[in-house]
Amino acid sequence: MDVPSISERGRATPPSPIRKLVPYAEAAKARGVKIYHLNIGQPDIPTPPEFFEAVHRFDGKVLAYGHSKGLASFLRSLKDYYCRVGYTHIETEDIVATTGGSEAVIFAMMAITSPDDEIITFEPFYTNYNGFAHMAGITLVPVGTDPETGYHLPPRERIEAKITPRTKGILLCTPNNPTGTVYRREEIEEIEELVLRHNLFVLSDEVYREFVYEGEHTSILSFPRLMQHAVLLDSLSKRYSVCGARVGCVVSKNSDVVETILKFGQARLCSATLEQVAASAAVDAGDKYFEKMIREYKLRRDTVFNGLLEIPGVTCKRPKGAFYVMTTFPVDDIEDFSRWLLTDFDVGGETTMIAPGPGFYATPGKGMREARIAYVLNADDLKKSKAV
Amino acid sequence: MDVPSISERGRATPPSPIRKLVPYAEAAKARGVKIYHLNIGQPDIPTPPEFFEAVHRFDGKVLAYGHSKGLASFLRSLKDYYCRVGYTHIETEDIVATTGGSEAVIFAMMAITSPDDEIITFEPFYTNYNGFAHMAGITLVPVGTDPETGYHLPPRERIEAKITPRTKGILLCTPNNPTGTVYRREEIEEIEELVLRHNLFVLSDEVYREFVYEGEHTSILSFPRLMQHAVLLDSLSKRYSVCGARVGCVVSKNSDVVETILKFGQARLCSATLEQVAASAAVDAGDKYFEKMIREYKLRRDTVFNGLLEIPGVTCKRPKGAFYVMTTFPVDDIEDFSRWLLTDFDVGGETTMIAPGPGFYATPGKGMREARIAYVLNADDLKKSKAV
Repeated sequence: MDVPSISERGRATPPSPIRKLVPYAEAAKARGVKIYHLNIGQPDIPTPPEFFEAVHRFDGKVLAYGHSKGLASFLRSLKDYYCRVGYTHIETEDIVATTGGSEAVIFAMMAITSPDDEIITFEPFYTNYNGFAHMAGITLVPVGTDPETGYHLPPRERIEAKITPRTKGILLCTPNNPTGTVYRREEIEEIEELVLRHNLFVLSDEVYREFVYEGEHTSILSFPRLMQHAVLLDSLSKRYSVCGARVGCVVSKNSDVVETILKFGQARLCSATLEQVAASAAVDAGDKYFEKMIREYKLRRDTVFNGLLEIPGVTCKRPKGAFYVMTTFPVDDIEDFSRWLLTDFDVGGETTMIAPGPGFYATPGKGMREARIAYVLNADDLKKSKAV
Repeated sequence: MDVPSISERGRATPPSPIRKLVPYAEAAKARGVKIYHLNIGQPDIPTPPEFFEAVHRFDGKVLAYGHSKGLASFLRSLKDYYCRVGYTHIETEDIVATTGGSEAVIFAMMAITSPDDEIITFEPFYTNYNGFAHMAGITLVPVGTDPETGYHLPPRERIEAKITPRTKGILLCTPNNPTGTVYRREEIEEIEELVLRHNLFVLSDEVYREFVYEGEHTSILSFPRLMQHAVLLDSLSKRYSVCGARVGCVVSKNSDVVETILKFGQARLCSATLEQVAASAAVDAGDKYFEKMIREYKLRRDTVFNGLLEIPGVTCKRPKGAFYVMTTFPVDDIEDFSRWLLTDFDVGGETTMIAPGPGFYATPGKGMREARIAYVLNADDLKKSKAV
């Protein structure tokens, strides 16, 4: 019998690069091996109590659709947050609530591109940008950054060389996943020049805004000349340890962008009501939650970085933000090595799971010696995972 | 200053057709006019207590990512549900949990199409199919159905005439939104023949499965020859009155489809954890919840249908399912009429909001005398809205 085939779009969409290792991790667990999960960005930090209090207090009788743009109370909480972090020009009408940062990325991509258009981004990049680009039917054009320079942005000419008539925007992520790099203001000023010269959008993923241990976060919202070009992609997942809540937003002063994203939002009706109510309570509780969390992550960052330096042949720059460090290992094939850690290696019944580098690159053959290490566990466990 | 433009995809995506009326509704409310909202599918039926009990009982400390495929407990609840409604061949591996039925539709569309491909559907159709098709960069090819025949499926030849080399599937909705039509088994057998002959997928939106007042629901899952062709799109929104929870799923025995949808699911990480936990409790509470609800909707259906028949010049067939009735009015332009109901009409300070027909058609000029009426209010309010 003939069976219809899935689409080329579906075939080309990459599976999660971490997923390949899951069967080996499961087999290791079945053998009784304890695995330190340094492969995923799931923090162990407790969610703010205000979030769960709001959940427990919820007393609606009908769990009804909310506004497609987001609940008014949630949009107001977000506006207040942006005001507190210094973006006093952001109004609720500039914000659309999204189902996680994921939906923020795909809605923004779709708003600025039609199929076959291009968006430039920097390798290594957050692996799911790739999936979203395939879903949107567009091409993600990578510009390489180097481990040796701490994955900072390349010179303007190298970026400009990739701009074609199909280029609609440049996608940044700072503080960066997977590298932990925090772009300096001067770097983003180079992007500003390019964006203005070529009349492009700039999509800026700043979900790790608070996770800066040295230097300063520079937001795309702080460039007055980019008001009509800048689209901020944001998520509460890491900031409030609510990864499973799926709450995020898109922010732009470009009303066409906001209106277009709202049309996509109307098609999917709304983002979850209960989660927005609870997220609003977490945001309204203020920013004191971050201080302790950032101190904790700084400690973890130092623990991991110092530990990595002690391993012969391993190199990495000290990451200034987010909770990842992209690390170069003295191996030829990091995928073999990551698998070997699960299949053949353990110290006292314990091993470590890491995210192989190639999953963060679009260019074939790149990242073969790198892996992303997420320092999302407490320092004791991190030390043990290093000892391992 | 040059400002970059949003994409053709963004421009072409239609805004919610109901949204155009919102400013008029707001103005009417500001004048003190009470509006009966027959324009939206937001039921007033209380959500099952088991859902909120699970929400209130949730005692996790970290709201973590769940599996991209859905929480194991939720997938098991869904499998049990499909078993209870007669589809004993559905296993958890055939199910991917989605963020509402909306995500089920767009993931399924993207799995079977690449940009510029075509999916055939029947006019009038659920208006957001249009938005999803634009987002996916594909063409929704409409085949008309007639008010006079109760919007039943057209003869096979009329559908077959629309099949091209780019056609990847046929999208059905039964019980139908917006028409309330429940397709007979023989009708879907015609689709079966077409799908097999042309090796297409069939996407079947059955979110109103329980909402049948006469006759019987026929599921795409009950066609053994279509096991590799059928993709069920489902949502708990209406079935458990949890529209704001955004919980749904895709079900298919075609493992390529499931794997592809899972890749899209991995890109967006997961669907909300808390909502899946609570939805699982609602599904596990069994199907007794439906009985009372369906009795209530049958009463409303009769109230609305009988009321409409008494209005001179208004015609409609008695809908057999869902909670909508597509109604033909003795007017030339239903959009003018819908607006007029809000701007110039009231009886004792009360008026009615309806969803104009053209929003449910892709063919320009169609639906100009029709409107969708949602009987989601209690019978007393429905009577009043008719009196109005």
